[in-house]
Amino acid sequence: MPAPTAEQEQAIRDAVVRGFDDQVRFLQELVATPSRRTDEADAQRLMARAFEDAGLTVDWLYGRGAGDMKGGLVANLFAYKALRAAGLLPEGRVHLQSVPEEECTGNGTLSVMQHGYTADAVVISEPMGEALVRAHLGVIWFDVDITGTAAHAQEMSRGFNALDAAFALIVRLRELEQHWNEITVGDEHFGDQEHPINLNVGVLEAGEWPSSVFDRCHFSVRVVVPPSLGSQRAWEQIEQCVEEAREQDPVVSRGHATVSRSGFFSDRYVLQPGSEAEGLLRELFSDVAGRELEAFATPAYIDSRVYGNYQDVPSLVFGPVAESLHGKDERVNLESVKRCTEIYALYMARWCGVREG
Amino acid sequence: MPAPTAEQEQAIRDAVVRGFDDQVRFLQELVATPSRRTDEADAQRLMARAFEDAGLTVDWLYGRGAGDMKGGLVANLFAYKALRAAGLLPEGRVHLQSVPEEECTGNGTLSVMQHGYTADAVVISEPMGEALVRAHLGVIWFDVDITGTAAHAQEMSRGFNALDAAFALIVRLRELEQHWNEITVGDEHFGDQEHPINLNVGVLEAGEWPSSVFDRCHFSVRVVVPPSLGSQRAWEQIEQCVEEAREQDPVVSRGHATVSRSGFFSDRYVLQPGSEAEGLLRELFSDVAGRELEAFATPAYIDSRVYGNYQDVPSLVFGPVAESLHGKDERVNLESVKRCTEIYALYMARWCGVREG
Repeated sequence: MPAPTAEQEQAIRDAVVRGFDDQVRFLQELVATPSRRTDEADAQRLMARAFEDAGLTVDWLYGRGAGDMKGGLVANLFAYKALRAAGLLPEGRVHLQSVPEEECTGNGTLSVMQHGYTADAVVISEPMGEALVRAHLGVIWFDVDITGTAAHAQEMSRGFNALDAAFALIVRLRELEQHWNEITVGDEHFGDQEHPINLNVGVLEAGEWPSSVFDRCHFSVRVVVPPSLGSQRAWEQIEQCVEEAREQDPVVSRGHATVSRSGFFSDRYVLQPGSEAEGLLRELFSDVAGRELEAFATPAYIDSRVYGNYQDVPSLVFGPVAESLHGKDERVNLESVKRCTEIYALYMARWCGVREG
Repeated sequence: MPAPTAEQEQAIRDAVVRGFDDQVRFLQELVATPSRRTDEADAQRLMARAFEDAGLTVDWLYGRGAGDMKGGLVANLFAYKALRAAGLLPEGRVHLQSVPEEECTGNGTLSVMQHGYTADAVVISEPMGEALVRAHLGVIWFDVDITGTAAHAQEMSRGFNALDAAFALIVRLRELEQHWNEITVGDEHFGDQEHPINLNVGVLEAGEWPSSVFDRCHFSVRVVVPPSLGSQRAWEQIEQCVEEAREQDPVVSRGHATVSRSGFFSDRYVLQPGSEAEGLLRELFSDVAGRELEAFATPAYIDSRVYGNYQDVPSLVFGPVAESLHGKDERVNLESVKRCTEIYALYMARWCGVREG
């Protein structure tokens, strides 16, 4: 395949810059489109229309999802559009994927894989601060349900407040979290991080009336799988933790705490250094950003485990600078989005080769 | 006023027994009618229709509200109907009241009082196990709102989980509860009870997504006012407890915990012994039940504080045997309901006097 000429690459870079106002407008529209779990259809339709149109479009852009992960998703699209706007077609096949459930199961990408799509290299535009992810960890979601005994508050001690059992069990789960951090000390990729294993109680709901002791408490947890355990062994330890708490702690026992998986059940992925795919990204990053690409390990979940673990495709996770991910003040750096978009566009061109068209 | 004759009283008692199947059916209907806060209109309409019709229509009856307080409410109505069915009219004025918000503010009864209704004696048919309430305590409802810092769970320590501040503050509030129980030791009515001051966390809600640190936690509390404090002083101590927790506990401080009143703000009431109103109830109870009426003190809230404290009307709280109040297995003893209904009917007749009609 013919490599792009220096002029062609300049044309691509110019096209990224020219298309950038459109890109920002479209990103605004996408950020304003709901994309919560089970309500992702509108965002997916918007992406589908824009993919179809793809003859398509400050310092920080704010909005929930602006960084994680609508900024990167739109960058993929506009990288391809820049290629086309430069009058070029990739010689190889380029897949753009817009998938649901990346934040809770990974099933969207698994489904694409099951439909037979594969590739020689994958670039995932997660907002990783323009650094490359060398390794990420597995994640498990689980729910805990507690049963109390409802009663009038005037005879509070006759009832059993399900919240008490939840508190007691959370203390036990925090002990497991601490143990998991201890066994991660010395790990090749995560051993030097202060607290790589986070156990996050993200939802807790109990009761409906101040004057009643409540008979029900529900909470949802996201926890990171230690690198020395697979998700299956980690899950067994969670179940064991709950079982031991029920045996040893009368309060947990009285609450009949039960635990169930409710989303993520994923293993870690390590990008082996030295691949051709990584080499090209390093080269382009150096060209465009004028410095060396850094790599790091993150306890986040990333869909690269699907391509990397199940298809053995080198999976590069590299994307723009963003802050306050999942926060209401989430924001993405637009200069960084522009720089990443250029890199993605050039990556397509150099990896696939190009022809005029 | 002419006292009812022995024959007339027997006719009333017979009429209660005859009307009792209707009474149970109507109680079933009322139990099946929603009567939650802000959704009490249907139950009120049903009572209004039945009051209007009042020329109207097992061992335990189960259902949320069966005991507290639909059983007693219906007993009042059927007591009056028994009087009428016996061919009698009270010589004095009888008020039957069906009010909203008894479980959360007391404003329903306050509103009736503000509309000018008064009486020489009040009988409240709360499910008190066929005993008389000598004293009850004041109650305060309050809400606590905590602000956290939302973040992706992967950088959990950058965020601040509002639940942590809620836990820390609840520990402080439990210390206040303990203090309030300590200062209640030796009280005339409550000094011998093991734990009269209950602080019940009845609702707790936080977060919406397992993979986010949540930025918001809300919980609602019902707490009993110690007899040596009025509600105003108790409230000041609650505010002070929260303020001190914010000053002394960095976790509470970081959560910007705020507290606000959200319902009950009521004082206690003591029924002074020896009133004519109490004497009549004792006499009737002894006649019908064949034993002495017992009196006791309860940390429950009861609307008797409205009549007793603001109108100086002796307020008798006396009603049927019920169990699991506010629980899903709540139940009322129907023999007890029948006995109480007889007592209420005879009370109307003897207190007011009767004439044929």
